[in-house]
Amino acid sequence: MNLATAIYTFDLLGVAVFAISGALAAAERRMDILTFVLFGTITGVGGGTLRDLLLNTDQVFWIHDPSYLWVCIGASVATWFLAHHFDSRRRVLLWADAVGLALFCVLGTQKALAWNAPAIVAIGMGMMTASFGSLIRDSLLNRPPVLLGPEIYVTAALLGSASFTLLAQWPQTATVALPLSMAAAFLLRAGALLFDWRLPKYRDDNT
Amino acid sequence: MNLATAIYTFDLLGVAVFAISGALAAAERRMDILTFVLFGTITGVGGGTLRDLLLNTDQVFWIHDPSYLWVCIGASVATWFLAHHFDSRRRVLLWADAVGLALFCVLGTQKALAWNAPAIVAIGMGMMTASFGSLIRDSLLNRPPVLLGPEIYVTAALLGSASFTLLAQWPQTATVALPLSMAAAFLLRAGALLFDWRLPKYRDDNT
Amino acid sequence: MNLATAIYTFDLLGVAVFAISGALAAAERRMDILTFVLFGTITGVGGGTLRDLLLNTDQVFWIHDPSYLWVCIGASVATWFLAHHFDSRRRVLLWADAVGLALFCVLGTQKALAWNAPAIVAIGMGMMTASFGSLIRDSLLNRPPVLLGPEIYVTAALLGSASFTLLAQWPQTATVALPLSMAAAFLLRAGALLFDWRLPKYRDDNT
Repeated sequence: MNLATAIYTFDLLGVAVFAISGALAAAERRMDILTFVLFGTITGVGGGTLRDLLLNTDQVFWIHDPSYLWVCIGASVATWFLAHHFDSRRRVLLWADAVGLALFCVLGTQKALAWNAPAIVAIGMGMMTASFGSLIRDSLLNRPPVLLGPEIYVTAALLGSASFTLLAQWPQTATVALPLSMAAAFLLRAGALLFDWRLPKYRDDNT
Repeated sequence: MNLATAIYTFDLLGVAVFAISGALAAAERRMDILTFVLFGTITGVGGGTLRDLLLNTDQVFWIHDPSYLWVCIGASVATWFLAHHFDSRRRVLLWADAVGLALFCVLGTQKALAWNAPAIVAIGMGMMTASFGSLIRDSLLNRPPVLLGPEIYVTAALLGSASFTLLAQWPQTATVALPLSMAAAFLLRAGALLFDWRLPKYRDDNT
Repeated sequence: MNLATAIYTFDLLGVAVFAISGALAAAERRMDILTFVLFGTITGVGGGTLRDLLLNTDQVFWIHDPSYLWVCIGASVATWFLAHHFDSRRRVLLWADAVGLALFCVLGTQKALAWNAPAIVAIGMGMMTASFGSLIRDSLLNRPPVLLGPEIYVTAALLGSASFTLLAQWPQTATVALPLSMAAAFLLRAGALLFDWRLPKYRDDNT
């Protein structure tokens, strides 16, 4: 599997898991099936859409290649029929979101670097690609945002984006940069979900 | 009246009714007149702005032709002076929103097709153009979104977008595609408002 | 100091004060340091980013020049360490927001005019650049939006944008247009904060 194929596969996978998380959020609120598809699609392609708008790419990715929309539609409809099998939809939503986070922080950074963005911009773009879909899903549905939850979230995206930026610049590590940095982001977020890892919060007497 | 004039007229009308719905939402929250204009304008041009950004058109429509802004300003100011004549501002808001929905789902699809977007993208673009202005109006003002109300809404936009996509491709029906699909979308939404038509909601034991 | 340098300096300053207001909003909600940086950055560059997307400039300003991101990161981290020294973080947030408002309404108008936008578009763009960062800060953190507060806010942005548009077109006043219109916007907002200036609100019997 060459790099372009790997990126495309991971990208579709990330869109699918975010779409599932969007559809599950619609399930929480007892929406109808079209609203499942709507929120699945917005959540699935939201982060990448903002990334492409900011990078001023020729075409937003899902306009260029509508497969992404079909993936969102398919994942949302499947969620409609399968969601009641899950004991805890909230847990499934959080884990789908974690997989999407890990994939998208790295893919967002990769695309920004491919468009010659400076390192700090590429890292920011990765963090944004990973968190924007989740943010609009939660804010449109008026849920407490996963992003602002107590456990580590943004930090995991930062780890994925920064480690990819670092690894991608050396020929020896470039080939493994993609899976390694995705794994790093996922493991940090998974640890946060399982063991409730947190960064210190702001207190009035801190410093 | 040729096609270009018809599109322009419908477009201005759609912007005006959405602007009225935005100004009425500002009236609900007892805003001042400038905030009326602000929310009228955001609601009026919001959906089309997102459409143009995503399609990467040369210029956002209201930058190219500021008449749209004047229509928003005029409609908002008129709402300020006339809103107290209405018995139920909430009903007027919903009906203005329904007219805007019907016009914009078709016009959004039409513009996307004119920019050579694939059918599924054009349909999605139509649904988004129709619902985005309404979504930001309600989420900025912290109202329960009309879009997520119990009766059919997104489905009406889908009907308008899909029927236009279908009708526009045959020479025999192309000339009537615009009014017919707008009427279809409006009638479905109107029926939903009058007779409380709903799609089945997600339940844990569905399928 | 020539005009370009003045604009760049004011721009960095505006980004910094908005970033501080974003970080202070994160402090209110007891976030961790990365979330401080995230909200500082979104608030700092949000308005200008929307302006650049709408104007379809070649590159969004902070992608072209990452100094803006460093300013946001620096201002957010400084806020983390210094915020507990302030007696009233809410007052500091409002005043930082007021300075940002005054700077950005004029700078947004200036950039739109430089891209040959018509006057009404340039004024709208200035108002939007000034208020969008503040809007997303408050709506993501689920705070009551400063923008929708009872005292004059949008009007101050309108004053800054409109007076700059007016003053910039005459050679005699063009050189002082920038500081004069910024001062006008700031003084109006400052008066609103200090003396609770308000526009009349919508009432059912108005006209």
